[in-house]
Amino acid sequence: MPVTTQAYAAFSPDQPLSSWTFERRAPRADDVSIDILYCGVCHSDLHFARDDWGFSSYPVVPGHEIVGRVTSVGSDVSHYQVGDVVGVGCMVDSCRHCSACHDGLEQYCQEGFTMTYGSPDRHDQSLTQGGYSRHVVVSERFVVRMPEGIDLQGAAPILCAGITTYSPLRHHGVGPGHKVGVIGMGGLGHMGVKLARALGAEVTLFTRSEGKREEALAQGADHVVISTDEAQMEAVAGRFDFMLDTIPVQHDLNPYLNALGHDGTHILVGLLEPIDPPINAANLLMKRRVVAGSLIGGMAETQEVLEFCAKHDIACDVEMIKIDQINEAFERMEKGDVKYRFVIDMQASFPA
Amino acid sequence: MPVTTQAYAAFSPDQPLSSWTFERRAPRADDVSIDILYCGVCHSDLHFARDDWGFSSYPVVPGHEIVGRVTSVGSDVSHYQVGDVVGVGCMVDSCRHCSACHDGLEQYCQEGFTMTYGSPDRHDQSLTQGGYSRHVVVSERFVVRMPEGIDLQGAAPILCAGITTYSPLRHHGVGPGHKVGVIGMGGLGHMGVKLARALGAEVTLFTRSEGKREEALAQGADHVVISTDEAQMEAVAGRFDFMLDTIPVQHDLNPYLNALGHDGTHILVGLLEPIDPPINAANLLMKRRVVAGSLIGGMAETQEVLEFCAKHDIACDVEMIKIDQINEAFERMEKGDVKYRFVIDMQASFPA
Repeated sequence: MPVTTQAYAAFSPDQPLSSWTFERRAPRADDVSIDILYCGVCHSDLHFARDDWGFSSYPVVPGHEIVGRVTSVGSDVSHYQVGDVVGVGCMVDSCRHCSACHDGLEQYCQEGFTMTYGSPDRHDQSLTQGGYSRHVVVSERFVVRMPEGIDLQGAAPILCAGITTYSPLRHHGVGPGHKVGVIGMGGLGHMGVKLARALGAEVTLFTRSEGKREEALAQGADHVVISTDEAQMEAVAGRFDFMLDTIPVQHDLNPYLNALGHDGTHILVGLLEPIDPPINAANLLMKRRVVAGSLIGGMAETQEVLEFCAKHDIACDVEMIKIDQINEAFERMEKGDVKYRFVIDMQASFPA
Repeated sequence: MPVTTQAYAAFSPDQPLSSWTFERRAPRADDVSIDILYCGVCHSDLHFARDDWGFSSYPVVPGHEIVGRVTSVGSDVSHYQVGDVVGVGCMVDSCRHCSACHDGLEQYCQEGFTMTYGSPDRHDQSLTQGGYSRHVVVSERFVVRMPEGIDLQGAAPILCAGITTYSPLRHHGVGPGHKVGVIGMGGLGHMGVKLARALGAEVTLFTRSEGKREEALAQGADHVVISTDEAQMEAVAGRFDFMLDTIPVQHDLNPYLNALGHDGTHILVGLLEPIDPPINAANLLMKRRVVAGSLIGGMAETQEVLEFCAKHDIACDVEMIKIDQINEAFERMEKGDVKYRFVIDMQASFPA
């Protein structure tokens, strides 16, 4: 039977989110039904609600950093039981048969993965709706288990901000002996600092703002470089093995490429536009440098990062809100006024 | 004692090359003196002669695809004897103590390598002069041995065009089971096709010109895609593991990125400018694609590519000229009217 759920939705690009009650699909045999406890607020939620990327559908319930408790399971579900505490990230389905899916890289599914909100469901074509709601129904392949003892509020953003930074660090083999620069210190950047440090690397935060120095060191950065200071940038020329670039808006990559040594890798995880100013190809050729992209992570790796964070006592720094504060939270996010992620307490938002 | 040598030099950016007689340095203890037999004509020679990059010095004797016979060796030379047939490529020195030099990656020397022409010598600050001449004096670390039985005329361009395409193919592990696109079919591109094929990959040549189809297949390409045909480009979306991009002028990388599957790598070996039109970062993030640069190759790898070519019977397709045809050759190169490399016969050019 379909489940009626309370939620907050965007109904158009230019209106604030508002309360909405809608029906989740009747659970299928492989589905897990989840009572949502917490949902992180990602910058993508804001972009999608406002149609900044031009492919939004309305109404849309944002939210893809979901932590909740299993309330029922379909007849084919084998990994989860009622009462389990689980997570749902940015994906809720994929083709499941291409080479990427086969390799546990569902985020690179050749047919395109099904986004947690705003995508047509692969079975009934209904639009998926996200975690700014009380309940969600998801196929078990796209559900992860929250490790025993993890801080559930601080763990919710690991499902997007955490996996987005962890996946490329792991893929490129970052570890002890490596010098890693993390560019930007928002939701992604502060997780990048913590994760790179826990992986054993020497971590330098690059920021435009002198005011972030103390914060960065407190987050675990070994060094801070003020990226607008040409002398500081020149002083680190050729020093780094990796740059983890979390900046979601246009910026010049060339000064950071200059800070990489030969065979250095600049990893983009935040930018989705034509790179402007452009990369100077000479900065790649002359030192065999690489510019790489990375998008969230696969389901197995999402489970892995949760366990890694539990083991290393890593959580996202969060500010808890109720759902009726979401529009104010969006406004504060736009101003960069959050350290470093809002998380919605869903039980406090929708009391029984 | 310094050796007087005949040569052709550029004396200014806007004059044709003309005859010049000058003195090579007195050989040092680690130097090999070489009587030049053949020298390939690289597009870089033309750029440098005309100061297209803005850092040329005059007079300059171009030429960095040098094959010759050893006429004398210094007291510290241990690897070469009088009579050996040897090669000299794009580098004649480096710092020899940084981590790049230590790893056999002299082309990424942290202090910058000494170019075969137009660089100050690290000992006496005199400007180096290249292979459009009868004799050259080079430290043995920057000399390679020509394998027994190799076609010396067709091998000369391996010292630049060959190593430039071989090095990234090897570095990125190209081999059987890989689908490789080679973009452009000039001096570098036609060697890229031959080398990628010999490494076991399935090779597709991307060209703007239908007229190059037969040539490309004759060079060993398995397939040809006309890059200006949007339907052909769309038909190969997501198909490739690697693109070897030999184009030295501005072009749009995005359609080629679209032809790479997830984890595909686009290797730039020809472009040295800000990339215009710019790379769309979404094309990197959405499939974890990579854009990489690569510059010639180290000395050990240059020896390796010569042996690889000898073993696989690979040579550059060349058109032989005498030195007094060099200005005409430059003009024809500018029009793309060469298949695929001019090589100067130095003994015929400067008879004893």
